[in-house]
Amino acid sequence: MSKFEIIENGTITSPKGFLAGATYIGLKTYGSNPLDLGIIASEASCVAAGMFTTNKVKAAPVVLSQSRINGKKAQAIVVNSGCANAFTGEQGMTDAAEMASLTAEKLDLLPEEVLVASTGIIGVPLQMERIRAGIEKIALTKANGHNMAKAIMTTDTFPKETALKIKLGPEETEITIGGITKGSGMIHPNMATMLCFLATDVAIHPDFLQQSLKKAVDVSFNMITVDGDTSPNDSVIILANGLAGNGVLDNKHPHAEDFEKALTEVCLFLAKQLAKDGEGATKLIEVTVDGSLTVDQARIGARTIAGSSLVKSAIHGSDPNWGRIVAALGRSGTEMDESRIDLHIHDTCLIKTGQIQPFNKPYLKSILDAPEVSIRVSLNLGDASAIAWGCDLSEEYVRINGEYTT
Amino acid sequence: MSKFEIIENGTITSPKGFLAGATYIGLKTYGSNPLDLGIIASEASCVAAGMFTTNKVKAAPVVLSQSRINGKKAQAIVVNSGCANAFTGEQGMTDAAEMASLTAEKLDLLPEEVLVASTGIIGVPLQMERIRAGIEKIALTKANGHNMAKAIMTTDTFPKETALKIKLGPEETEITIGGITKGSGMIHPNMATMLCFLATDVAIHPDFLQQSLKKAVDVSFNMITVDGDTSPNDSVIILANGLAGNGVLDNKHPHAEDFEKALTEVCLFLAKQLAKDGEGATKLIEVTVDGSLTVDQARIGARTIAGSSLVKSAIHGSDPNWGRIVAALGRSGTEMDESRIDLHIHDTCLIKTGQIQPFNKPYLKSILDAPEVSIRVSLNLGDASAIAWGCDLSEEYVRINGEYTT
Repeated sequence: MSKFEIIENGTITSPKGFLAGATYIGLKTYGSNPLDLGIIASEASCVAAGMFTTNKVKAAPVVLSQSRINGKKAQAIVVNSGCANAFTGEQGMTDAAEMASLTAEKLDLLPEEVLVASTGIIGVPLQMERIRAGIEKIALTKANGHNMAKAIMTTDTFPKETALKIKLGPEETEITIGGITKGSGMIHPNMATMLCFLATDVAIHPDFLQQSLKKAVDVSFNMITVDGDTSPNDSVIILANGLAGNGVLDNKHPHAEDFEKALTEVCLFLAKQLAKDGEGATKLIEVTVDGSLTVDQARIGARTIAGSSLVKSAIHGSDPNWGRIVAALGRSGTEMDESRIDLHIHDTCLIKTGQIQPFNKPYLKSILDAPEVSIRVSLNLGDASAIAWGCDLSEEYVRINGEYTT
Repeated sequence: MSKFEIIENGTITSPKGFLAGATYIGLKTYGSNPLDLGIIASEASCVAAGMFTTNKVKAAPVVLSQSRINGKKAQAIVVNSGCANAFTGEQGMTDAAEMASLTAEKLDLLPEEVLVASTGIIGVPLQMERIRAGIEKIALTKANGHNMAKAIMTTDTFPKETALKIKLGPEETEITIGGITKGSGMIHPNMATMLCFLATDVAIHPDFLQQSLKKAVDVSFNMITVDGDTSPNDSVIILANGLAGNGVLDNKHPHAEDFEKALTEVCLFLAKQLAKDGEGATKLIEVTVDGSLTVDQARIGARTIAGSSLVKSAIHGSDPNWGRIVAALGRSGTEMDESRIDLHIHDTCLIKTGQIQPFNKPYLKSILDAPEVSIRVSLNLGDASAIAWGCDLSEEYVRINGEYTT
């Protein structure tokens, strides 16, 4: 496949024809920056795809965006932080629709071409006067992509953004994919949620875009865990405006796979940034389960290990507590045979075909003190594998989440 | 039904014909008491029933006890703490069998009549010389029931034991049920697990005993959550010796239900003691979900709320964070309609038919500072309900679990 190239300081506005703008309207009263309202827009009409929360409590902007994305055309996304517009009933739906309409008016689009996302406190209505004034005030530029990444942050400690380019086909048409994301627990209904916005200038069939997004999300955002919770607002949305000038991609196109791999790369980078910035997290944990009978079993095994409170606490304390890893795998439902398992922490083998191996404890502890810890379990039953990411569980997580609204 | 009476200082040896004994052999090097090996025995042959871990990693004593309980006869249980005899391969099976044989020899029973349980560090073989000397040394008495409750403790901060008696039938035959339990996280593969032993002098058909035990465990031990993990050693075992002299109970017996209720009462008491003693816990959380379409949906809803790290952290901080409760319910899969939900914390209504209610925050905070916090969600869709118990998530949980083996 074509090599992709990471763009220095890349962000959501790196692809051709994408602009963004952000401002402060006073919805967000915490966090490391004040921006709390932003717009991402394309100069040309886009095909759109999205994946949304599976939580049965869905925020108004999710309901709205999900119905509009079914139409598969969109050209802008308006997003606020500080208020989730969730559990807000009829008023919430009216407000989400008005946010879209005002943005459409400003950009000379149809309301149906604007998607909406919100993140922040739930059960509180949007302060629409501030939203109206804010949308009016926002100036859209290329340079504002970085501000957009900041405007969607809640308890995040750093903005999360990236972009890459690849060359497609014999004509070597260069296409770019950029993205931003936020969320430092998987959910904090009072202040946060997981949002990701992606933009690309590729010309692409909407069904293939949706399919590629699903594949990319399945191995990235769906494989990270901070605290096992999901939110009413979780959304991943991609817009593709076709300005790169390539031949329209579909799933039979010879470069379909190149695009999918590039999109997955962007999502993986952003997802790992999320796990790293988990509330109270001091370490990124990468868990690989291989030699599984099926990918689904490998996925559930890796996710269960990465999500285990006991594993997470042990990693926080740099404790090579392999018993907890094996027990988490055991309860995950993954098919396994104790006597065939190999277990590595980084390059140190702790279990070989079910037998506990001697290891150098001070060395292993020094490895566990690093900011990234990798765990690999080989089931030695089949060929399937999966990787999940999580973070350690610290006293700080409890402090952050125990002192929230009070 | 007949009224049951809680027995003062009741324990596993309160029912007729049950004896126990415990000693210290140096397997357990932590915790608040030194006892680490014990035997429970009946003077008469018993019918037995049991429920065991669903974890695919099963400890040797679980494999052995599970196969023996299929025979439905047993007369003694030998238990050690400090070593789980899990992930110990062939040697583990040999050692578990020897523990049973030595106990059988001491008590003049067949090896098949002795069940075995272990709890503690996994991946380490049992120190059989110490076990042999210990079994030899143990003296069985009525009074030793309390020591038995201590001998099974690992990181538990207090022993958990109870007994009650009820009168059955027109003859008013008095029967007694006693029990002990341990486990302060649902799992700590390095040091702990959940064990419960129950004894009764009722005469009962083994199939009905198994059925009653399943019912009681489903609403008690299966409805508590400390950290979402399960262990390779989890076991609940009941022995019934028939010495009460009642007519043999089966599921058609007019007093079948009385017995089931009494057994459930014992299990509920012990299960709540476990939740209260969760690692680092400072509060017991009781979550009721009612108005559900099915009991299964109510169960999963209640358990998901009680197990949510975000809800647990909020309760720890006495934060009336209802958004997290609603969001946990939303991801549980329980059928719900936002606009019909009522939510109470103790007697304070926070949500009425989907509308957020004003509440007195200082008053609610004072309620949340209490050692027992109750949450009730009414779905207003059907008639089914369930109750789950959990504990708050404290910085102390992380400290305990991060500093374990290192």
